[in-house]
Amino acid sequence: MSYQAPLQDMIFVLEDLCGLEGLSQLPGLEDATPDTVAAILEEAAKFAGEVLAPLNSTGDEAGLGFDAGEVTTPAGWKEAYQQLVEMGWNSPTADPDHGGMGLPAAVNACIQEMFNGANTAFQLCPLLTQGAIEALAHYAADELRDTYLPNLVTGHWTGTMNLTEPQAGSDLAAIRSKAVPEGDHYRVSGQKIFITYGEHDMAENIIHLVLARLPDAPEGVKGISLFVVPKFMVNADGSLGERNDVRCVSIEHKLGIHASPTCTLAFGDNGGAIGYLVGEPHQGLAYMFAMMNSARLGVGLQGIGIAEHAGQHAVAYAAERKQGGQAGVDGSVAIIAHPDVRRMLGLIKARTQAARVLAYRAASALDIATRSADPEQAARAQRRLDLLIPVVKGWSTEMGNVSASLGVQVHGGMGFIEETGAAQHLRDARITTIYEGTTGIQALDLIGRKLIRDKGLAMGELIAEMSATLARLETATTGAADWASMASSMAEAIEILQGASDWILANARANMQLPQASATAMLELAGTCLGQWAMADAALAAQARIDAGDGAAFLPAKLRFAEFYRTQAFPQARALLQQVTGGAEAVVALSAADLGAE
Amino acid sequence: MSYQAPLQDMIFVLEDLCGLEGLSQLPGLEDATPDTVAAILEEAAKFAGEVLAPLNSTGDEAGLGFDAGEVTTPAGWKEAYQQLVEMGWNSPTADPDHGGMGLPAAVNACIQEMFNGANTAFQLCPLLTQGAIEALAHYAADELRDTYLPNLVTGHWTGTMNLTEPQAGSDLAAIRSKAVPEGDHYRVSGQKIFITYGEHDMAENIIHLVLARLPDAPEGVKGISLFVVPKFMVNADGSLGERNDVRCVSIEHKLGIHASPTCTLAFGDNGGAIGYLVGEPHQGLAYMFAMMNSARLGVGLQGIGIAEHAGQHAVAYAAERKQGGQAGVDGSVAIIAHPDVRRMLGLIKARTQAARVLAYRAASALDIATRSADPEQAARAQRRLDLLIPVVKGWSTEMGNVSASLGVQVHGGMGFIEETGAAQHLRDARITTIYEGTTGIQALDLIGRKLIRDKGLAMGELIAEMSATLARLETATTGAADWASMASSMAEAIEILQGASDWILANARANMQLPQASATAMLELAGTCLGQWAMADAALAAQARIDAGDGAAFLPAKLRFAEFYRTQAFPQARALLQQVTGGAEAVVALSAADLGAE
Repeated sequence: MSYQAPLQDMIFVLEDLCGLEGLSQLPGLEDATPDTVAAILEEAAKFAGEVLAPLNSTGDEAGLGFDAGEVTTPAGWKEAYQQLVEMGWNSPTADPDHGGMGLPAAVNACIQEMFNGANTAFQLCPLLTQGAIEALAHYAADELRDTYLPNLVTGHWTGTMNLTEPQAGSDLAAIRSKAVPEGDHYRVSGQKIFITYGEHDMAENIIHLVLARLPDAPEGVKGISLFVVPKFMVNADGSLGERNDVRCVSIEHKLGIHASPTCTLAFGDNGGAIGYLVGEPHQGLAYMFAMMNSARLGVGLQGIGIAEHAGQHAVAYAAERKQGGQAGVDGSVAIIAHPDVRRMLGLIKARTQAARVLAYRAASALDIATRSADPEQAARAQRRLDLLIPVVKGWSTEMGNVSASLGVQVHGGMGFIEETGAAQHLRDARITTIYEGTTGIQALDLIGRKLIRDKGLAMGELIAEMSATLARLETATTGAADWASMASSMAEAIEILQGASDWILANARANMQLPQASATAMLELAGTCLGQWAMADAALAAQARIDAGDGAAFLPAKLRFAEFYRTQAFPQARALLQQVTGGAEAVVALSAADLGAE
Repeated sequence: MSYQAPLQDMIFVLEDLCGLEGLSQLPGLEDATPDTVAAILEEAAKFAGEVLAPLNSTGDEAGLGFDAGEVTTPAGWKEAYQQLVEMGWNSPTADPDHGGMGLPAAVNACIQEMFNGANTAFQLCPLLTQGAIEALAHYAADELRDTYLPNLVTGHWTGTMNLTEPQAGSDLAAIRSKAVPEGDHYRVSGQKIFITYGEHDMAENIIHLVLARLPDAPEGVKGISLFVVPKFMVNADGSLGERNDVRCVSIEHKLGIHASPTCTLAFGDNGGAIGYLVGEPHQGLAYMFAMMNSARLGVGLQGIGIAEHAGQHAVAYAAERKQGGQAGVDGSVAIIAHPDVRRMLGLIKARTQAARVLAYRAASALDIATRSADPEQAARAQRRLDLLIPVVKGWSTEMGNVSASLGVQVHGGMGFIEETGAAQHLRDARITTIYEGTTGIQALDLIGRKLIRDKGLAMGELIAEMSATLARLETATTGAADWASMASSMAEAIEILQGASDWILANARANMQLPQASATAMLELAGTCLGQWAMADAALAAQARIDAGDGAAFLPAKLRFAEFYRTQAFPQARALLQQVTGGAEAVVALSAADLGAE
């Protein structure tokens, strides 16, 4: 079973639902015309399907070697990484001035979905490097940037993010790593855990971005600074010098992403690792937050990519596996003919499609926010982006977990056998709702920073846009779709999203525990309602193409998926509204003792 | 982290919700008085916690050895099995005349939940043996029974169920294994896959129950017969003779239950394995169906047991792990204090409690159905059992999957690290919605054999009982619970279950594809509504104890869990009703091509 990037749907979403043409009129994106983008995505799809996907299961099975601080990646990974670097796929959005491709974030979203869908464990390496690139591009002083950025952009060097410590996971205020000034640099010491690609053999140098405290730092989140700590020192002429005082102590034995090294790194066991301050002291967390949107978008796209891959895998099996009969058919039928199997496959596909629209729309907002010459448009796009990110991250990854599990279920007993590969999706997906902020953390971000802080402004703007879709549904008449029912569900989606938002805002005053107890249901509700919006927009766009004479088979299918989403996925929204508005007290009332804590 | 059987809740459910006292008045169950039962369960809980639970993670990590057809179980498993046999835990319900303990099925349900919760991979061995015991006890001729039953009941020999073949999974009509008569026995040949404990080193003999076709057998399900094929022949004096012509060709590399051997067995590679016909020719499938209720109940209890274990594991971690602050508290708090963590833990616990009531009630119905002297009462109990079984199997195991996944989520990044043990629950649970009939198969059983076939008779009887609970809620006044809301939700549960059942019955006439498309949602809906009933009954029973002066702390907690279930789990029911009644057309409308099948 090989992964095939869903190019047709990706381009449809970019062009018809994300306004790709408009994006290509933004400063710096002039080359991203629809034709160029289609050609680039076709190349990326080939790389994903032909190079990355075949290594997905072999890498999972082989896992990583670890010996005396050195990590060995599985057979073929080094070569694939080399190809990635040569073809320029390492950092599609980086500034051409720094050696990047300068593609829109919306187009990069497609590429990231493909690469992650094909091989999540592999793509984590470029994903982390992209984070390091952003941090240096935005915040590092010229000299530091010039020393490290070019090789990170090409991928000759890779980057890492060193945040977590044993006592500091979701709560970064608890970070204890230290950085002591020494001449033009710092001596960094401390232990970091869960460092993705913290050590490996695919590139000649690894540039660690490390959160640590200066000696005079205030306590808590306001005393954390960001440092560059290279694995190998870089000489003035750009050549590599001595090994720095950072080493990989161990790698984790994990449920999934077996081929992605998750490292414990010890900094400064021999006097302190040499590090360089990025930007200003004590601003580390702010810099991290600024990169968070694209990192969280990236993980959301992992959820979507894995769901797509798991869905393709399950469809291929269901179309081949014969079992059981059906009225009017001689002998046994392929299980895809059984309604319950089709229901499971439809659920994977319809929700993946909906999540894709939301994620790409978030990426488009990122493009507009960072590039629009109109400050008001940019600010509005930034608000949209900020609001969508926790939903994209949280909802897409939860959807990825459920989809991968449904993929196993479609396989029946074979799904439980590792050789089949269905279980790998489940194992790999399982981390995506945890790292880069758990679903619970995304939910708190959604209700706190994104809803309560701006008093519902960004949500109001979003709901206004949903209302515009509703108006179009109410006047739609062409084709065979049941536009009246679609409009009625759209109205319901708006009412539910508004109602839940109002409840959160109203209950934020007295006791924050209540909205906190409802936060995850609120996030799922938002995803489900915005998914309804996305699928309604997709149906309208598909019908418009059909009306214009486009005979592509996926257009009427899109109308059927929209109806599937409306009747099989969207009903959850009302249940979630009940949970948001009526379930918080029961959560808060449960004591630790009730739960059995000793 | 060690597993502790939830004895207090188990006994509460048995006594207050399953009428244990009444069960002990049934013929043959006179010894099962509440005091005796409590003492037995306490012993079983010790065995589960002290012997089985410690082997759960070591067995998972070590896995199985396989060499030249021989399977080696992990260190300690043989000794634990020996203890199980010595203590008489192998077959708690078997007839004392056959050497069993003669316990009620309802009490055995507690024991099975404990043992499976402590160590699913281990308990599968006795579970399969229990199935073989039932088959032989009910259907084998005296001589065959006397030869094999006693050692199976004690557990000196273990039993297997050989149903699946590569082309015959959910569809047993496709079975091709053959049995050719030869004197007083048969020569059995064929390949069976997915045979749990098909080979191992814990007992001196393994008795395979094998489905195969006689030479003159009609095609399809009506031509399948059941055979006993021992691993070692049994001499006339009961001693073991030659090795039979059955061997283990390979064992599977699985996502979970690593220590439970899943074998491919080759029968008759050297002329045919000697086998003995059980009962009448061509009745094999009917015999299997007759055993199905207790096997499916057993797997449902695996789901509940794993959920309980995963929940305990997550609570222990959440009570210890400090992360993040809270208003009014200095420093960081244990994460159990965070509302979203408490929501996840509450959801695991509340749904586990609800599923436990349903499962034990099904087991009580089994006791009444098989033992009541009143034929009408017995028939009614059999109908109740038949109706509940697919719900108990399907809903409890789906709940087990979700609970294990929530358990991982509570652990954050640590949940993804195998050493923590949280991921093992997820991996182990994942097979329970598949084997012994997938959730989809349970759902078809529910709507077809259990609802449509008797035109809603059994469902009507069940709903009448739910209405009796509603009447009690409407007059409840004591304590602090919100009985009015509880009554209103109970009325809603009845209305939803009735409405969904009516839709299934009404739509069964025209196009069975429609109810088939809604079957799984119907199963989940039934579980959710019956869970509401179970928790309402539990709340009433807890309040009655409180009113009678019982000061146990779990009683007010039970009232809080009932409210939690009502506001956090039950809202799903209305969404599921929408899916049942409004979602089928969209499923049926999706074509294989829409889904991407080539």
